Amino acid sequence: MNNFTFQNATKIIFGKGTEHQVGEEVKKHAGKVLLHYGGGSIKKTGLYDRVVASLKNNGVEFVELGGVQPNPRVSLVREGIKICREENIPFILAVGGGSVIDSAKAISAGVYYEGDVWDFYIGKAEVEKCLPVGVVLTIPAAGSEASTGSVLTNEDGWYKKSVDTELFRPKFAIMNPELTYTLPPYQTACGAADIMAHIMERYFTNTPDVDFTDRLCEATLKTIIENIPIVLENPEDYAARAQIMWASTIAHNDLLGTGRVGDWASHQIEHELSAIYDVAHGAGLAVVFPAWMKYVYKHNVPRFVQFAVRVWNVEQDFHNPERTALKGIERTKEFFASIGLPVTLEQLGAEEERIEEMADKCTAGDTETVGEFVKLNKEDIIEIYKLARE
Amino acid sequence: MNNFTFQNATKIIFGKGTEHQVGEEVKKHAGKVLLHYGGGSIKKTGLYDRVVASLKNNGVEFVELGGVQPNPRVSLVREGIKICREENIPFILAVGGGSVIDSAKAISAGVYYEGDVWDFYIGKAEVEKCLPVGVVLTIPAAGSEASTGSVLTNEDGWYKKSVDTELFRPKFAIMNPELTYTLPPYQTACGAADIMAHIMERYFTNTPDVDFTDRLCEATLKTIIENIPIVLENPEDYAARAQIMWASTIAHNDLLGTGRVGDWASHQIEHELSAIYDVAHGAGLAVVFPAWMKYVYKHNVPRFVQFAVRVWNVEQDFHNPERTALKGIERTKEFFASIGLPVTLEQLGAEEERIEEMADKCTAGDTETVGEFVKLNKEDIIEIYKLARE
Repeated sequence: MNNFTFQNATKIIFGKGTEHQVGEEVKKHAGKVLLHYGGGSIKKTGLYDRVVASLKNNGVEFVELGGVQPNPRVSLVREGIKICREENIPFILAVGGGSVIDSAKAISAGVYYEGDVWDFYIGKAEVEKCLPVGVVLTIPAAGSEASTGSVLTNEDGWYKKSVDTELFRPKFAIMNPELTYTLPPYQTACGAADIMAHIMERYFTNTPDVDFTDRLCEATLKTIIENIPIVLENPEDYAARAQIMWASTIAHNDLLGTGRVGDWASHQIEHELSAIYDVAHGAGLAVVFPAWMKYVYKHNVPRFVQFAVRVWNVEQDFHNPERTALKGIERTKEFFASIGLPVTLEQLGAEEERIEEMADKCTAGDTETVGEFVKLNKEDIIEIYKLARE
Repeated sequence: MNNFTFQNATKIIFGKGTEHQVGEEVKKHAGKVLLHYGGGSIKKTGLYDRVVASLKNNGVEFVELGGVQPNPRVSLVREGIKICREENIPFILAVGGGSVIDSAKAISAGVYYEGDVWDFYIGKAEVEKCLPVGVVLTIPAAGSEASTGSVLTNEDGWYKKSVDTELFRPKFAIMNPELTYTLPPYQTACGAADIMAHIMERYFTNTPDVDFTDRLCEATLKTIIENIPIVLENPEDYAARAQIMWASTIAHNDLLGTGRVGDWASHQIEHELSAIYDVAHGAGLAVVFPAWMKYVYKHNVPRFVQFAVRVWNVEQDFHNPERTALKGIERTKEFFASIGLPVTLEQLGAEEERIEEMADKCTAGDTETVGEFVKLNKEDIIEIYKLARE
C-alpha cells in the first residue's frame, strides 16, 4: 500500500426532492451563476423549471448556457468562458451528467487563464485557479460530481483529452435518484459500464497489500451488477436507482484508489474510439475492457482469480487458476452484453481499418506507453483492438 | 434508503513517515497550537520529538497539555480551555488516539462558550463554534480523526456522554501505520472491537434498501477480521497495520451510515460499563455487542443471516435461518475471544450487583429508550447485561 493524501470536500445532498435545495445551496457561494446544461431533456422533465424556481426563490441571478453535447466540445467551453468574463459570473451550476459537469469544470479553469483553455488538456498549462462549481446530477456514470477530472473533446482533429486537479472537485452535488427514472435503458447501461470501468481501472493494480480498497472496489462493483438489471426491468425502482447513483460517486471520488496505482489504459484506448466515432464512452468501455483483460490477465493471474471469485461468484478451479481468471473475464463481457451494450468493435460501428490510426494517436505515434498494470505500446494496443473484434 | 447529506472534508495524510509533515500542515492554519497528548508513550516512542521538531522547523509555537487518560476527563478539558484562552491559542493539535482527539474536540468547543463545557454533553447547550483541530493518530479504533463525535467522562458521578456535530471534524489527520507497531496486543484487539462496533451499529438498521452501504460495511468488517490476527502474530506487519488503520477511519467517518439509521444501543450500554469500571471501551463492546445481538436478532432474522453469510462465511442453512443467524453471532463472540478480549461481564471485572444501576443510568431512570433497531427500555437492558454474563 502506497502513501497517499485524500480529501474530498464535495458536499453530497442525496435523495428525493433534493433539487429544490439548489438555490439555497448556491446562495452560500454566490448571488449569480452560469446555468450550464445539455440538450432539452432537463426542460422536458421539468427539472429545468424546478432549478430555476429554486434559484429565483433564493434571489440568485443566472445566465444560461445550454447545448452541451455528449463528449463535450471545447468550442462551447470557450463560449462559456467568454460569458463568465463578460457577465462577471463567480459560480457555475452544472445541471446534467458528466459531459455538462466536465464542460463546467473546463469553463471554471479557463476564466482565470489568459491562453486557450485547450492548453490545460494538452499539458501546455496547469490549472492554478478555478471558479467554484456546483452540480445537480442527472446521470450516474462519470462520477464527475465529486471527482478531480474533466474530459474534453477538440473538434479540430477529434482529440479527446483529460485534466485532473483537486481544484476541479465541485463544492456540492445534489443527487436525486428520481431524476434518473427517465434515463433510457441504453444510457443506463452505458453508465453502468462507465462506473464499473472506474472501479476496475483502480482494481487492476501492481501495488501490493491493498486488501481494504480491494474489498471496497468489489463491494461497489457488486452493487452495480446487482442493481442495473433491476432498473432495466423497472426504471422507476427508487431503491435500485439510489444504490447505483451513490455507488457511481464513490466509484470515482478516489476513495477506492487510495494507496494504489490505477491502470487507466482502457480509458485511453476507449477515448480514441469515442473521439472518432462519437460513441457513448460507456459503450466504448464495454467493448475495450474485456479485450484489455484478455490481453493482460497473465500478468497477474491471482488478481484475476480474485476478481472472478469475489465479484462474479465464479466457482474457483483451484487446480487451474487461469480457467477461473478467464471465466471472470467472460462474465464481465456477458454482463455488458446482457444489459444491451455492444461488446465488439463491429457492434459499436467501428471499422477495422482505423485500428492503426487509433493506436497511433493513443501512443502519440508509438512514443508513449499507455497504462500502469501493464505498460502498453502501439503494437499492444493494436492487438487489444483486434481482440475487441471477437 | 433515506435522504442524506454527507461531507467529510478532513484531509487524510496517510503512510510511512507522514508525521514529519505535521508542522507544514499546521502552518496552513495557525502559527501557534495547543499540543495535546496522553501519557508518556509518545515520548517513549520518539513521536513527540519528531512532532516537536516538525513544528519548530515550520516556526509553529506550541503550548503543551499532556495527561489525557483513556475515557478522557472533563477536568483536563477545563484546564485546556483555560490555557487556550489565556495564551490566545487558535489551533489544537491532538497527538494520540481517540481519547486525546475527543478531549481536543471538547476543548475546541469550550473555548468559545461562556458556560461549562459539560453543558454540551448533557444537552444543555449546543456547539456553535470551535477552534480547528488537527490530528496525528496513534491508535486505530475510535475513528475520531475524521468523525463528528467526542465522548467525555465526568468524574463527578462517572457519567460518560457524547456530542456529535459537523464542527468536530478535524481539519487533517496524519496517519502513519508504523506508529501503531508498539500498540500492545490487548489495545490492538480493543481497537478492533471498537472499529467493528462502529460498523455494526450502522449495519443493524431498520432502513430498507441499503444494499450499497451494506456491502461497504461488510467489506470494512472483513478487512478488520482478516488483518487483526496478522498483526497480533506480527505487530510490525506494515501491510496489515495499514489496512486496519485506513479501515478504522472509514468505519466511522459516516460514509457507511449514509442513507440509513444506525442503532447505537450497544455503545450506550457499554458506556455505563466503562464509566463505572474504567475498562477499555473496546473491551466493553466485545462483551456487550454479542449479548445485544442475541437479544434482538429475531427482530430481523434475514439481516442477521446476511451478516453471518457475508461477513463470517457461515454456510447458510436455507431451511433454518435462525440457526444461521445464531452462528453469525457465535462467530462474532468467538472472534473477540480469539483476539484476547473479554466476552463476559465477569471477564471484564464487572459485578452483577450493579446491573440494575447501570440500566437505570442508561435509560435515565427508565424514562428513555436506547437504540433504534429495537428500542430498549430498562428491563431490556437488564436482560442484555444478564446475557452478557454467559
